[in-house]
Amino acid sequence: MSTFDPASIEVLAFDVFGTVVDWHGSIAAEVDALGLGVPGAVFATAWRDRYQPSMHKVRSGELPWTKIDDLHRMNLDEVIDATGVTLDEAGRRSLNLVWHRLNPWPDSPVGLRRLRQRYRLATMSNGNLGLLADLSRHGGLQWDLILSAEVFRHYKPDPETYLGVCEVFDIEPAQMLMVAAHKDDLRAAAACGCRTAFIERPTEHGVGVPVDVSVSADLDIHARNLDHLGELLGCPPVS
Amino acid sequence: MSTFDPASIEVLAFDVFGTVVDWHGSIAAEVDALGLGVPGAVFATAWRDRYQPSMHKVRSGELPWTKIDDLHRMNLDEVIDATGVTLDEAGRRSLNLVWHRLNPWPDSPVGLRRLRQRYRLATMSNGNLGLLADLSRHGGLQWDLILSAEVFRHYKPDPETYLGVCEVFDIEPAQMLMVAAHKDDLRAAAACGCRTAFIERPTEHGVGVPVDVSVSADLDIHARNLDHLGELLGCPPVS
Repeated sequence: MSTFDPASIEVLAFDVFGTVVDWHGSIAAEVDALGLGVPGAVFATAWRDRYQPSMHKVRSGELPWTKIDDLHRMNLDEVIDATGVTLDEAGRRSLNLVWHRLNPWPDSPVGLRRLRQRYRLATMSNGNLGLLADLSRHGGLQWDLILSAEVFRHYKPDPETYLGVCEVFDIEPAQMLMVAAHKDDLRAAAACGCRTAFIERPTEHGVGVPVDVSVSADLDIHARNLDHLGELLGCPPVS
Repeated sequence: MSTFDPASIEVLAFDVFGTVVDWHGSIAAEVDALGLGVPGAVFATAWRDRYQPSMHKVRSGELPWTKIDDLHRMNLDEVIDATGVTLDEAGRRSLNLVWHRLNPWPDSPVGLRRLRQRYRLATMSNGNLGLLADLSRHGGLQWDLILSAEVFRHYKPDPETYLGVCEVFDIEPAQMLMVAAHKDDLRAAAACGCRTAFIERPTEHGVGVPVDVSVSADLDIHARNLDHLGELLGCPPVS
């Protein structure tokens, strides 16, 4: 772990799905409430399993630029086909928008308020802008700026995303702290010269599903949650 | 004035400079405080006079895509040369950032809160993203989403800006209400199929400088300020 000075940081950029909001729990609950005949947890995992491969098709040029709402819909149709679920067009459209109403982890709203006292906070998510705006309103998440792969027309972990945040705020990469529950995301940011904060989200893929929350020496900060990150960065608690 | 139903609107998109914040008064006060030997009101007007021509150079292709912070700096250097003011590099950098700390009109923070109870609120400003984020934090302005010419790589009144907002929120143009103190901005939005709300800002260019705040039959709504717009749209008052 390299020397880290909280005063050197100007902007915190947050991964959102899994780091700030609980996609698995939120989707599983909505699917279970719909009574589709497939366990919500299974459905949520199957849907999310198609997430990285679909973005890879955009990154590789197999697909033109396609926003996450549209990739989610393509993937939803595949999961419905694969699981034999019956859902009409209106039902599919509504379910696809569950990503716009994912619930935050309990510490997220207060943790962001704590951090925002000292830092400018931005999202740097692969979610599209409209999705992130709706999700933030739904969860009471206050940002200085919502940034998205949609702005840069590149998906993480492409360097254009991390460096794009720095350009927007006119800061050096070393003045940006990337915050994520995913080490590959953080390491891609570090390769651009950004600093890194890992957040433990042990139940991101559902209770009892193993997740790597170990301390890694190459990451700058290791926090239990966003409120703990505020503590580690010396931000006063908020009520 | 065509029939207008507030329930048909999903998103309010706001012009910012002049409509939500008082650029002239804020810049004049900062320049006067610096004691540069030129009246702040004169300096503010001279700086702003170069704003449209510099964006036109981007629109016409004479300049590559250039964000407003950089256009403001080019224009600032010209105004300093033209007025014979002495200001070193650090002073110029600091003064250029006055656009990041423009003060809102008194009704803006409360008016936005009132409107946000029923609508999603976005900026659609020619200001760049970092500028809008700083200005919103400075003035306590709460948006669902900060959108900018920087996202669409087009300056208003190019149609890519208004239609870009609709695409981001996945709405039809008729579901977007453009809010501005400038009729040319509103008429460009209307040409894209958007609805329009004019806001009176009689002192935008300084006290005593004439501004057209007359009622125009081709615009959907005419409001005295943002709180009055909330009233006209049937949003409950907030304290």
